[in-house]
Amino acid sequence: MRDVSIIGIGITKFGELWDKSLRELGLETGLSAINDAGITSKDIDALYIGNMAAGSTLQQEHVSALMADYCGLTNNHVPATRVEAASASGGLALRQAYMAIAGGFIDIAVVGGAEKMTDVSDSESSYTVSMGSDEQWESKAGATFASLHAMIAQSHISEYGTTREEMSAVSSKNHYHASMNPMAQFPFKISSEAVSNSGIVSSPLRMLDCAPNSDGAAAVVLCASEKSSKYTKKAIKIIGSGQASDTLSLHHRKYLNRMPAIGIAAKRAFESCGKKPKDLDLIEIHDNFTISEIIALEEIGIFKRGEAGAKILDGETKLGGKIPVNTSGGLKARGHAPGATGIAQVVEIVQQLRGEAGDRQVKNAKIGMVENHGGTAATAVVHILEGE
Amino acid sequence: MRDVSIIGIGITKFGELWDKSLRELGLETGLSAINDAGITSKDIDALYIGNMAAGSTLQQEHVSALMADYCGLTNNHVPATRVEAASASGGLALRQAYMAIAGGFIDIAVVGGAEKMTDVSDSESSYTVSMGSDEQWESKAGATFASLHAMIAQSHISEYGTTREEMSAVSSKNHYHASMNPMAQFPFKISSEAVSNSGIVSSPLRMLDCAPNSDGAAAVVLCASEKSSKYTKKAIKIIGSGQASDTLSLHHRKYLNRMPAIGIAAKRAFESCGKKPKDLDLIEIHDNFTISEIIALEEIGIFKRGEAGAKILDGETKLGGKIPVNTSGGLKARGHAPGATGIAQVVEIVQQLRGEAGDRQVKNAKIGMVENHGGTAATAVVHILEGE
Repeated sequence: MRDVSIIGIGITKFGELWDKSLRELGLETGLSAINDAGITSKDIDALYIGNMAAGSTLQQEHVSALMADYCGLTNNHVPATRVEAASASGGLALRQAYMAIAGGFIDIAVVGGAEKMTDVSDSESSYTVSMGSDEQWESKAGATFASLHAMIAQSHISEYGTTREEMSAVSSKNHYHASMNPMAQFPFKISSEAVSNSGIVSSPLRMLDCAPNSDGAAAVVLCASEKSSKYTKKAIKIIGSGQASDTLSLHHRKYLNRMPAIGIAAKRAFESCGKKPKDLDLIEIHDNFTISEIIALEEIGIFKRGEAGAKILDGETKLGGKIPVNTSGGLKARGHAPGATGIAQVVEIVQQLRGEAGDRQVKNAKIGMVENHGGTAATAVVHILEGE
Repeated sequence: MRDVSIIGIGITKFGELWDKSLRELGLETGLSAINDAGITSKDIDALYIGNMAAGSTLQQEHVSALMADYCGLTNNHVPATRVEAASASGGLALRQAYMAIAGGFIDIAVVGGAEKMTDVSDSESSYTVSMGSDEQWESKAGATFASLHAMIAQSHISEYGTTREEMSAVSSKNHYHASMNPMAQFPFKISSEAVSNSGIVSSPLRMLDCAPNSDGAAAVVLCASEKSSKYTKKAIKIIGSGQASDTLSLHHRKYLNRMPAIGIAAKRAFESCGKKPKDLDLIEIHDNFTISEIIALEEIGIFKRGEAGAKILDGETKLGGKIPVNTSGGLKARGHAPGATGIAQVVEIVQQLRGEAGDRQVKNAKIGMVENHGGTAATAVVHILEGE
C-alpha cells in the first residue's frame, strides 16, 4: 500500500449561510482546496463527498454528481461518490478516498463535505439530525438527539461523578479556541459560568453544551505521497486510519456511559501506524455535546475513564496545555455542519501541522488526530496525520 | 492489487413488501449471502450498504450502522459504510468494497443494497426518485424523472428513427425473462402490443416502458480471490470495474440522446481487464426506462448508435439470442428498488456464471457485465464478472 498525503485544504466560515446554496458552498471550498494544492481540475482522478441530509433538507440526493457537475469536473467524467454516516459522513468519505489512493487505483482525489441545515426550520433541522439515530426505537419514539446524549451524560455523572463545571469547561475552552479562528461560527469567548447557567435542553445538558446545526463546507485534496512533491512542499501525511461501528440504538449497548466504537477506531488507527496516545500533539474531537468530548478522550486513551473531566477543568486540553483539543473551536464553536464536520476537523489539523494556525497555533505540532463520529457514536472514524 | 471474487449471494423477491421493514430486508439478504458463502459473521471485515432514500421515505439516515446493528455485526465493531448515488448506490457500494479488498485493507466484505419505496404514497415515492436529478433545475421546476427520460427518448427517436415497437420489445423481452425468475416482482409475460397500448406517462413513454418503484434487497459477499477457496468452490471473479460521472442536469449535456457516463464507465471497466464488448456472454442493463436500455447498449459498444432498437426487435438480446440482456427481468420486471438494484443485477450475473439460473440460464456463460446508473446517468458504474 502506498502512503497518502493531504496537499490542499479549503473551508468556509460555518454558520447560517442563507446567501449560499449547498452547491455554492461545495464549489467555494473545492476551488480553495484545488488552488491551495496547486493542481488543476484535470489532475483530479476522483471526487468523494460527505453529506448527511441533503435529501431531507433540500430534497436533493445524488449530491456527488451535483458537485461534480457544479464544479466542472464532468468533462473528464471524474468518478464521484457520496458517503453518508450521519455526522461521520465527512470522515468516512475521507477514508474511502484514502483507501482508493493507497490501494493504487487513483493518484489524486478531492474529498469535500458540505451541509445546509438552516434552510429549514429549527425543528426540522433538529429532526433531521435525529435521523442519525434509530428511527424505529429512538427518533420516532420521541427521543431527540440531545435527549439521547443527556442519558449518556447522566450515566457518566452517576458512574464517575462528572461535574457540571467539567462539562462547562469543555464548552468554554472550545469557545476560547474559536475566538482565534476566523472561520468559526461563534468566534468569541464564553465563560464556564455562562455555560452552567444557560437554559436546559435535556437535563443535564444545557444550551451551551450543544453544538449548533450549521451550514458549511470543507474540502481537502489527497495525493499519493510519492507524487505530492510535484505539487506542494507542505504535504501532510495520513499515517493512520481506523473505522468502527456500534449499535445504532443506545439501548442495545452494555454501557450507557461509553462510546466503544471511538476507542476501537482509534486503536485501529494507532495500530496502522505504530503510534500511541502519548505521541499525539493535538486532537480534533467530535464534541457534538460536551459529554461526547469527555467520553471520546477517555475512549482514545488520552485520560483514564472518569478522569477526563477533571483534566479538562485543569486546562490540560487548552491551547498551551499538555494536549490541546479542538483548537478550531470544535463542533460547539467552529460550528457543526454534519457532512462537512469530519473534513473541517482535518483542515484544522493540517493547518496546525503546517504551522499556519495563527494565534491558535500549537507549538511544534508534529502529529495530530481527528476523531469524527455519527449518531451516538454508532459510526466512528479516526485519522492520524503527521507533518513532514 | 489483489483479485477479488464474489463468494456468496442473497436476494429477496422485489415488490410491495409491506410486511417487511428495511432492516428486515437487509438482514434477510445478508444472512442468505453469508450462508451461501459459507462464512460466519466473525469472518466479515467490513459492511457496505447501498441505499438511496431511507432519509426521505423512512426518516432514517445512517443506514450502515442500522444494518450492522440489526445484523448483529457490532460485537466485532465491523466498519459499516453507506454509499449513495441515486439508483447507482448499490453498484458504487460494491465498487468501494472491491477497492478496499483489492487494495489489501480487508479480506471479506458484505455488500448489501436495500430500499423501501412503497411505505409512502405513490406521489411521494415518485418525488423521492426525482431527488436523483437536479433539485434546482429539474425536480423543483416540475420535471419528473419520467419526463426527463421522455425528452431523452424523443431526442433518440428524432435522431435515429427509433420506433415504438423497438421500445416495446425491450419491455416485452424483460418480462419474458422475468417469467422465469421466481424473485421477480412481475414474473409474467407481457406482449409488445400491450406495452405499446399502455397509458401515456410522459410522451413517448408509456406505463409499461417504466420500471416500478419497488421494495427489495440484495447482498453479496466479496472475498480476496486468494482466500476464496477456503469458503467456496464457486467463486466468481470481478475482473473489471469502472465508474464515471456526467452532469446532473440534462440541459448541461451536449447530446440529449446519449448517456456518455455509461460508455466511459464501461470503457474503464473493459480497460481494467483487457476485455472487449464481443467477449461478453450476457449483460444486466439499468433499464429504468426502455429507452435507457437502448442507449446503454449503444454506449457500451454492443450495437452502433441508432441500431440497438432494431437488434432488440430482432431478438438478439433475448435469451437464446446473440447476447442476452437482463435475463433477471431487468428493472422493468424483476423490479427496481433503487439502492438494491445494483446488487440485484450482480446477483443475477453470478447465478448465470455459476450455471444456477434455472430456466433462464444462458448456455456456457463465462463473462457477464453489470451496468448500473443513477439519475439520467449522471453516475454510471460498470463491473465485469468472470466464472472460474
